Amino acid sequence: MDLHDLGEFGLIDRIARAARRLGKPRGVVIGIGDDAAVLRCRPGEDVVLSTDASVEDVHFRFTTESPRNIGRRALVANLSDLAAMGARPLAFTLALAAPGTLPLRILDGLVAGLLHEAAAHRCPLVGGNVSAAGATSITVAVVGAVERGRALTRRGARPGDRICVTGRLGAAALALARAEQGLGRLRHVPTPRLGAGRALARIPGVTACIDISDGLGADLQHLLDAHGLAAELALASVPRAPGFAARCRRLGIDPESTLLGSGGDYELLFTVRGASPSTASLSRRLGVPVSEIGRVVSGGKGSGPPPARGWRHF
Amino acid sequence: MDLHDLGEFGLIDRIARAARRLGKPRGVVIGIGDDAAVLRCRPGEDVVLSTDASVEDVHFRFTTESPRNIGRRALVANLSDLAAMGARPLAFTLALAAPGTLPLRILDGLVAGLLHEAAAHRCPLVGGNVSAAGATSITVAVVGAVERGRALTRRGARPGDRICVTGRLGAAALALARAEQGLGRLRHVPTPRLGAGRALARIPGVTACIDISDGLGADLQHLLDAHGLAAELALASVPRAPGFAARCRRLGIDPESTLLGSGGDYELLFTVRGASPSTASLSRRLGVPVSEIGRVVSGGKGSGPPPARGWRHF
Repeated sequence: MDLHDLGEFGLIDRIARAARRLGKPRGVVIGIGDDAAVLRCRPGEDVVLSTDASVEDVHFRFTTESPRNIGRRALVANLSDLAAMGARPLAFTLALAAPGTLPLRILDGLVAGLLHEAAAHRCPLVGGNVSAAGATSITVAVVGAVERGRALTRRGARPGDRICVTGRLGAAALALARAEQGLGRLRHVPTPRLGAGRALARIPGVTACIDISDGLGADLQHLLDAHGLAAELALASVPRAPGFAARCRRLGIDPESTLLGSGGDYELLFTVRGASPSTASLSRRLGVPVSEIGRVVSGGKGSGPPPARGWRHF
Repeated sequence: MDLHDLGEFGLIDRIARAARRLGKPRGVVIGIGDDAAVLRCRPGEDVVLSTDASVEDVHFRFTTESPRNIGRRALVANLSDLAAMGARPLAFTLALAAPGTLPLRILDGLVAGLLHEAAAHRCPLVGGNVSAAGATSITVAVVGAVERGRALTRRGARPGDRICVTGRLGAAALALARAEQGLGRLRHVPTPRLGAGRALARIPGVTACIDISDGLGADLQHLLDAHGLAAELALASVPRAPGFAARCRRLGIDPESTLLGSGGDYELLFTVRGASPSTASLSRRLGVPVSEIGRVVSGGKGSGPPPARGWRHF
């Protein structure tokens, strides 16, 4: 069985039935099956909107990763954008493009992966679009809500701010390198730091925030670009996945450029004004380890981050 | 110059600069350039969310249509979904997938077309995603707002309701057939019935609404499916584009199946309970001609709509 056998409406119906099994959470007034979904925020909340695509042979390969894993990572990438704004998820839409020859088994796996993360983070699927295409792609649009005026942005960093990061970096790059070298399937799924992001949005000294999707170097640059700033980065204090150096060695990849240039960990990178709260206090309030890895300085000064980039699409 | 020459960030920057030229409308707290956009509804409004994709060689061809026209139609398809819910537009995101060899001239045309409709209907571009792909596709997610509890749905039709439609049908199909036969470029861009949709949402007797994207037959079926209903359709009273019969004849296409099976006009198809308001009164309040084309009947009775379909994707 492949998508041809189902037809467009059969395919929509199959995805909708899987999504409806999760129930209709509060906040969803009208879900799948109409021209659009209707969602309800709480009073005093702003609406947060983002979109992100996962494309076959660009962001994933069916040869090295299960469809379920691919689906999970596709939603996580979007949830992470909500986390970076300090928002809570409300719902998402799925625009799926795929060849008619795609086996149903793969479709079901992709959808199961998306819905797994949807259930874990209370972000129901409320609509979408299916279309035929040469390669498979999963384009998600996610909507969240944040207390009015409290959204975290990329634009608030100033000289003197501490640069902090949640969790550890490098696990996504190690898993990807391992899979690309044919040493096993890609099983890694990062955690979108939704709780940490919401906590950050309530801490007054936090000046800017971004999720690390393109790599530490590139994403730090995004925080600095807004006001032409630079950074002094203590590379040694960047928290690494367990056994990072040894695993890089075994895989024959450079630890430093991997740490700076690899996206996909979806940790939060943020800046804090002043000495308080301490990293210990931040870790407690965010519910995840926080490390201080550097300091924002005026443009022109400081070493600045290396030009390492996550990936380029064109 | 093509997309390769720009690179991912150059491409994002080019689209963002074009979008920013339109200014930041009220309702947009944070626009392009952060991890997500932040939008603000008015008090007492619900959030409306929809997504729709336009794919090269499925929904459009570069050989028969200008990039600008393609971009315009891509946004119109999404705005029409808001219209069908009775919502006003707030903002949209764009997920663009394209080969690196796509000429910049084509990219600029697509973006100009999207932004033309964005300006016309006050629906700014607030974010997006670009990725490499074998074929070009434009996936839009659109967010709107509707007065709480007032969204139009597909589910309210009951036996006895009048079936009405805005405007005239068939122009999109004629334009498409002409272009496909090599008789000129596709220049037709339908109008999303946003004002009419918002007016409909305020008329108490209106029981259900959908936009005609898949074709009159298929979309009417969507209104009936919800409760297993049928319809008596007076095909002769379906309003037709000027010179419809003669133009069908010249193009060698069947008028009846074209009228029933062709999507892309994006007129609103809706049901009304009771004899009032009259079509004259509806036309006045909606600001667009309204025609009565049939009546909802219990399932099993009535001729029902023919099984003609807009298009199938798989």
